[in-house]
Amino acid sequence: AIMAAIAAQFGPKPLAGRHALVTAGPTHEPIDPVRFIGNHSSGKQGFAIAAALAAAGARVTLVAGPVHLATPAGVTRIDVMTARQMQAACEAALPADIAVMVAAVADWRAEAAPAKLKKDGSGPPPLSLTENPDILAGIGHHARRPALVVGFAAETGDLIAHASAKRLKKGADWIVANDVSEGVFGSDHTHVQLITAAGPEDWGPTPKQAVAERLAGRIARHFDGTP
Amino acid sequence: AIMAAIAAQFGPKPLAGRHALVTAGPTHEPIDPVRFIGNHSSGKQGFAIAAALAAAGARVTLVAGPVHLATPAGVTRIDVMTARQMQAACEAALPADIAVMVAAVADWRAEAAPAKLKKDGSGPPPLSLTENPDILAGIGHHARRPALVVGFAAETGDLIAHASAKRLKKGADWIVANDVSEGVFGSDHTHVQLITAAGPEDWGPTPKQAVAERLAGRIARHFDGTP
Repeated sequence: AIMAAIAAQFGPKPLAGRHALVTAGPTHEPIDPVRFIGNHSSGKQGFAIAAALAAAGARVTLVAGPVHLATPAGVTRIDVMTARQMQAACEAALPADIAVMVAAVADWRAEAAPAKLKKDGSGPPPLSLTENPDILAGIGHHARRPALVVGFAAETGDLIAHASAKRLKKGADWIVANDVSEGVFGSDHTHVQLITAAGPEDWGPTPKQAVAERLAGRIARHFDGTP
Repeated sequence: AIMAAIAAQFGPKPLAGRHALVTAGPTHEPIDPVRFIGNHSSGKQGFAIAAALAAAGARVTLVAGPVHLATPAGVTRIDVMTARQMQAACEAALPADIAVMVAAVADWRAEAAPAKLKKDGSGPPPLSLTENPDILAGIGHHARRPALVVGFAAETGDLIAHASAKRLKKGADWIVANDVSEGVFGSDHTHVQLITAAGPEDWGPTPKQAVAERLAGRIARHFDGTP
């Protein structure tokens, strides 16, 4: 219905000729050849956004972490495992007009051991963490920054304050913020606040599919010049 | 073909009246509400074994970590996330005649933080690991120990030595050992050594499905008294 409304307002392919970069899913940071640090991102939201942007006419490059999802029609998918691989794939995908960074990128990686860590009776191994590159901030401050950079924020409290600070720090135009303390991961529903320079906008509890279509509509209006 | 051979030798349901406990998949150990330590086990081997044992007539309880697999026909499935949940589900499933512990249980868990860990500029958070319960050893030395306890070993070197030591230490009758340095995780193939009291037996490179059927056949022969 939303896509039909967009089509009625802007024509069927309002984003034709635009290139959109979308990231989705978690990253897995290896601890050793069998273990990794992951997170509960299912990739559903990012894949739905990639599909909605493609449906709106954009050429879409989807950089996906390890997820169990089919590639949406008309979308070019690049599979990666780690944050550093995701960053490299995003850089390689530029230039883009639109970047929607939905992936739940690991903030930290471990110093990966070359062989499987074994229990040797001396207690757990120390796990030394190192900060990963900040992919959203890298895109938001890039020399070839897309015209519209949208980040996602998963928060467990102080949603609007954290997401507003994140928008400025990362150089993003918009932040789609959702409270993951409510069981969003893997679910088809989410409760979203869209944070723009104008402040927060409560989208309420919304199916991830509808968030994707609404966001694609906002992006189409942005490029059309409508505020 | 193997199941047909078993059926020809022992009748169509050689394990009728037997209860088999099977574990499969990884465990996920929470770091905070969004992050976890996982491993690359897909659950395919354990699910195939559960299916083969059910096809051989056993009543099968399958305790599964987080995987994306359909429950095999005739199998009772219990989904768990962490090693401690898996241990509790296994204990609750006893008594059993057969235990086949295929799951890649996390050796260590983190002290989980109640809220999402944030980057605060002071560097990565310390990640304190604690040893998890050893589910195979617990079953292998249990007061209600199943008559046949089979463990799995994923090794990246010294396969037979490590697996033979594991067999004795865990109180298992057999260990199915495979070298995970060869890209076994998520694959449909594996290279297996069956370690029994008589020593190692090289099954060679084998599809996971065939490992499952061959193992079910061995279990059927074991309960039939054939060496």
